[in-house]
Amino acid sequence: MGFFSADIKTLDDLFVHTLQDIYYAENRILKALPDMISKATNPQLRQGFENHLAETHGHVQRLEQVFKMHGREVKAVTCPAIDGIITEAQDIASDAAEKGVLDAALIASAQAVEHYEITRYGSLIAWAKQLGRDDCAGVLEQNLMEEKAADAALTEVAESQVNARAA
Amino acid sequence: MGFFSADIKTLDDLFVHTLQDIYYAENRILKALPDMISKATNPQLRQGFENHLAETHGHVQRLEQVFKMHGREVKAVTCPAIDGIITEAQDIASDAAEKGVLDAALIASAQAVEHYEITRYGSLIAWAKQLGRDDCAGVLEQNLMEEKAADAALTEVAESQVNARAA
Repeated sequence: MGFFSADIKTLDDLFVHTLQDIYYAENRILKALPDMISKATNPQLRQGFENHLAETHGHVQRLEQVFKMHGREVKAVTCPAIDGIITEAQDIASDAAEKGVLDAALIASAQAVEHYEITRYGSLIAWAKQLGRDDCAGVLEQNLMEEKAADAALTEVAESQVNARAA
Repeated sequence: MGFFSADIKTLDDLFVHTLQDIYYAENRILKALPDMISKATNPQLRQGFENHLAETHGHVQRLEQVFKMHGREVKAVTCPAIDGIITEAQDIASDAAEKGVLDAALIASAQAVEHYEITRYGSLIAWAKQLGRDDCAGVLEQNLMEEKAADAALTEVAESQVNARAA
């Protein structure tokens, strides 16, 4: 989460810092997706990435809404985890490998990103509810549902098209 | 995955490199868990981490078995993603915050680790099947099932005990 944990004294502190962590991550993904779109060769995969780019703009906006609802300034904290996941994704995106294999690698990278977001949203929603912020939990739940759907769509395109072509 | 992707030409290359990535990750987790155990204060959480440490030894052994079944040398490649996730976990583990909040943060960190493993095992199993290596897929499936169970157990202890105490 890229924070000095001495700052985390209450569950509310932990909630806000993790919100800042995922806000950083969503913005990082916004910058990374166009390159993944340009490298993807399977049309369904490329379309899926394009759809997710549009959704990710919406995720950033919903997070800004949650900061506001919770009375906190919109802020990002550097998150080494998403940086590492995206560094790996970019290594592959710059690959010169056979295109079917590159698509398979891009899907795996994107699913690692999705799973990072799924776990962080899961924690945030549980903490929001515990803090009596069902309003924030409801907004975060919308992002979580779209991340899970994106992950499932990636599995579908991998299993129905990409993996067989890569083999 | 910490590899130079120019080395990845076939789905088999991608499978083996991702196997090396998760082998690095499992070994990294083996080193990180004892510190998380020592910091956890909730008895059920501590016990869960101890059980998962024992399971992780088994995961490393199963990965060594898969390398052998697939006729490849046992090898690890540095994985920036798991390094980042564990760096974040250790930031929190060195925290001086209220203990209930620390437990909540430890659970979130451990679930980020679990989700990274879940996504990598998911890709590996799909690729193994595509490569006609149902034998390797079966062994990897055992690790995946234990990671999913560990993630569910962490959610259970968070929701039944830790989050309420942290709030």
